[in-house]
Parts: sequence; structure tokens; C-alpha cells
Amino acid sequence: MDIKLIKAPSPATLDIIQNRSKLKFDKSPGAMGLVQGKMIEMTVACDIAYKTSGVEVSDVRGSCPQNMVMLAIVGDMEEVKVALRNIEEKSKEKDIW
Amino acid sequence: MDIKLIKAPSPATLDIIQNRSKLKFDKSPGAMGLVQGKMIEMTVACDIAYKTSGVEVSDVRGSCPQNMVMLAIVGDMEEVKVALRNIEEKSKEKDIW
Amino acid sequence: MDIKLIKAPSPATLDIIQNRSKLKFDKSPGAMGLVQGKMIEMTVACDIAYKTSGVEVSDVRGSCPQNMVMLAIVGDMEEVKVALRNIEEKSKEKDIW
Amino acid sequence: MDIKLIKAPSPATLDIIQNRSKLKFDKSPGAMGLVQGKMIEMTVACDIAYKTSGVEVSDVRGSCPQNMVMLAIVGDMEEVKVALRNIEEKSKEKDIW
Amino acid sequence: MDIKLIKAPSPATLDIIQNRSKLKFDKSPGAMGLVQGKMIEMTVACDIAYKTSGVEVSDVRGSCPQNMVMLAIVGDMEEVKVALRNIEEKSKEKDIW
Amino acid sequence: MDIKLIKAPSPATLDIIQNRSKLKFDKSPGAMGLVQGKMIEMTVACDIAYKTSGVEVSDVRGSCPQNMVMLAIVGDMEEVKVALRNIEEKSKEKDIW
Repeated sequence: MDIKLIKAPSPATLDIIQNRSKLKFDKSPGAMGLVQGKMIEMTVACDIAYKTSGVEVSDVRGSCPQNMVMLAIVGDMEEVKVALRNIEEKSKEKDIW
Repeated sequence: MDIKLIKAPSPATLDIIQNRSKLKFDKSPGAMGLVQGKMIEMTVACDIAYKTSGVEVSDVRGSCPQNMVMLAIVGDMEEVKVALRNIEEKSKEKDIW
Repeated sequence: MDIKLIKAPSPATLDIIQNRSKLKFDKSPGAMGLVQGKMIEMTVACDIAYKTSGVEVSDVRGSCPQNMVMLAIVGDMEEVKVALRNIEEKSKEKDIW
Repeated sequence: MDIKLIKAPSPATLDIIQNRSKLKFDKSPGAMGLVQGKMIEMTVACDIAYKTSGVEVSDVRGSCPQNMVMLAIVGDMEEVKVALRNIEEKSKEKDIW
Repeated sequence: MDIKLIKAPSPATLDIIQNRSKLKFDKSPGAMGLVQGKMIEMTVACDIAYKTSGVEVSDVRGSCPQNMVMLAIVGDMEEVKVALRNIEEKSKEKDIW
Repeated sequence: MDIKLIKAPSPATLDIIQNRSKLKFDKSPGAMGLVQGKMIEMTVACDIAYKTSGVEVSDVRGSCPQNMVMLAIVGDMEEVKVALRNIEEKSKEKDIW
């Protein structure tokens, strides 16, 4: 799973995300976190991001939402960092059932 | 085959699943199990899940249901855990013919 | 090439197959054999299954029939077993030309 | 590149090919050769088959003609065998330019 | 991640890019930089290119924007070179969160 | 990157190319060069072919122009050979920026 942090994303970057997700940017967010991996990993990462900070989370897809799917997490710099940190840590925990 | 368990899935997570499956969530389920693998593995896993607990099972797909297909299993925490446990165990059994 | 045998397939399993093939199940078949591999392998497997038993054979596909394509073989338990056995054995034979 | 030979292909096999190619079978051909590989390999194989025997050649595709594409070669048993043999031999020759 | 530089791109090359992106070329640009890699890498590369020079940046896609997606960066030779240099260097920096 | 040369391409081969590109063949060309590789490699190869000979160049695609994309280069035998030679040599040169 790849995780990236973009500080003050440019209009061209917001454009790529806006065209492939339900996110709409009236003003540029402070930061954008990106997560790319298997569908199952990104679904879990989405859940972690949503629960640990006030950031907005959306899946990024094309017309065929296959292997270019990403997760985009936008918000203030600190909030996005906390979300990425949580994803990185909690994704490694082994589920028990 | 990857198996994941999400406890008390968040609205963003339910959204991802709802948009790609026949599942509709009037209220958030207690737990969601996810299974990702080859089509043949997921079909077998679906059969196992359906037969061993009262959980609801659905395939998760996009417009092109190729390599992002998952199996989602929702229900109470204990029911989902039993289903995941059964999938893990019975998938390893060698078929005899 | 992966081969799996499902005994008394559940409604959820029949649903997955019915939605992606020309098979229609008025009543649940005794068994379902699944074969997943390269297109060329599955075409050969289809031919073997059709010729060695009275089972019904169909390709399973999505809207984009690419890498999630499977072969489904339905019938009585013993017939399906014979078909799977034949696929396994005859697929290994080297063609001579 | 995978090459397979099907003797007296069954109706179910002809069905798979007919639904994904321009081939129409009024009566079952004596044999069917299948070639699966990279697009560039199959295009060259198509050219070889067409030039060395009177067999009929067609590409096999789905709605998205990506990685399940095959080449189908139909005709009498001996003709198909010659075509497959030529593909196997001439494909290994190094082009010089 | 692959990076390429095309000096004075030909009409056929501009055609390939024009048909798969929002770029429109009234006159041929001095140079075209191309970046191909994972979706997450290209999104970050897009952001870097946009911020470090006056070049025009666009994602390149087909009807299914999956694994043939590229990033095209057009402008004067020196501007495009600076953009590619920045992408190469900054992509290696480890994000901290 | 794979490169192939077809001498005096047959009608079946021209058909495969014609159905997936903008090339139209009123008469059979003397030779056809094929190039298959990553999108970024083929775009560069297209540029090289266009600039070093009078051959006609086109991208070959299906409805989803993903991993079956090729580049077709048609013309007289010697012209096509020069184009393929140039692609092979110039593709290896390291860009400097």
C-alpha cells in the first residue's frame, strides 16, 4: 500500500481528483493524503481515516474503477497527517476472529 | 486471499460498499467482513459464508467487475467472525473428486 | 488453472453465477464445478467437460469478460466430479501436431 | 505464447468462440487451434496461419478486447495442425532489419 | 516511474496525446515530457510539475483510464526539463507525517 | 518493448489492425512493423518512426485502449525497416534534462 502527502495541492492536482471522485473543492484544502493499494486495503484505510479525524474521505476512480483506484483524504495539514499515521499503524494490526 | 474485519463500519465505508453491491444499509451493521481474491476463491467463500451463519453476503464490483471485486459479509460482530473463520478454514480443505 | 467443487451451492452462490452467465437455475443443482485460468485453458476445459458427461457448462463473465472469467459446470454430484477429473487429467496431455 | 488443439470441438466450445469473434459455424469444423499471447505475437501468428494453409483465422475478443484475446484457427485437422506448426516455428525466427 | 522527454513532438505524437487528454495543440510545443507510473505517483508528479514551472500539465487516458494513463507536460524545452528534474528529485523525498 | 516485422501482411492481419486503428488499407502495404510496450515507450517510438521515414504510423487499440495497445508502422519494406531500426536504437538513448 502506497501513501503520499501533498501539501497545498495545485489546481491541476485537484482537477485530477475532482474528475474521478465525489469531492468538490470550492477552495484548495491545506493538504491531500493519497492511499493506493488493493481494494480491500483501501476500504479498511477509508474506515480508519473517517474515524480518527475530521478529514473528508473519498474513493478516486475512473469509468472502470479497477487498478487506478485511490483513496483521497483532504483537510487541514495536521488532520490529514493524523489520518495517514493512523492508516499506516492500524493497517498493520492483525484482525482476530 | 485477503480477509479483513471492520468493526462498526463508518458511513464512508458503507458508501463504498453500497455503491458497488446490492447491499443497502438502513442502519450501520455491527461488523463487516471483506474477502478479496480470485473470482473462484470468492465464489467458494460466498458459499461458505452463506451456509454457516445468518450474515448477509454480497459481491462488490464496479462497472467492470474485474480485479477490484470483493466479497462483503455484514451482520453482528460474532456472526461475521464465524463466517470469516469458516472461510479461512474451509478454503484450505482440498476438494476430492 | 484453479478447480473448485461446491456441494449443493447456496442461493447467494447461484446468484453470482446466474448474473454473469447464461445459466438459469430453477432449482439448485446438486453440485457446481468452477474452473478459472487463462482463456485458452478454459476453452479447452469447456470442451472436455461437455464431451465427458451430461453436465451443463457455461462461461462466467462480467460486462468486461477479462480476468474474472470462470467456467461453471453444474449437474449431479457424480457427473460434475467426472467432468472435473477429466479436465484435470486431459489438460495435462501434450497436444501433438 | 500458448497453443492448443481441440479435435472436433463441441457445441459449447463453438459457442464461446462464436460469441467473441466473427466466425460463424454452420457445421462443426474438424479441428480448432487456439493461440493466446501478447497482441503483437497473435498478430504475427495470424499472419503465419493465413499464409500457410486454407484455414479460417479470427481474433477472439470480448467487449473489452484486452487480455482474454485469443486467435482461433478452424479447418480440417491436418490444415489446422500445419498452421499451428508454422506458428510455433516461425514465431521463433528473429526478424532482421 | 518512467520519465521521457520528446523534443519538438511530431504531429502523430501530438495526436496520440490530444485524443486522450484535455490538451489542445494549436502549434507544436517545443517539448513534451511524459511520466508513467502508478496513479498515486502521477498525481504527485502532476502537483510537482504544476508548481515548479509554467508548463501545461494534463493526465492522458483512454476510455478506461487504467494502466495506460500517463502525465503529459508541455512547454518550452527548458521549462519541461525543469519540471522533469523536479519530478525526479522530489518524488524520492520521503513524506513525514 | 517488443518489435516485430511482417512482410506483405495478409488480409486477415490487415483486418486486425484496421479494426483497431485509424489506418485504412486500399492496397496491402509492403511491410508492417509492430511495436508493443508501455504507453510511454510507444509514444516515444511513434515520434521516432514519424521523424525518420515516410511511413505511416498509428496506434492500435480496442474499445478499452489498455494493455493490447500496439503501434503499427506501414510502408515499403525498406522504410519500415529503417523506422524499426531507429526505434530500437533511439529508445535506448538516455534523455538528459
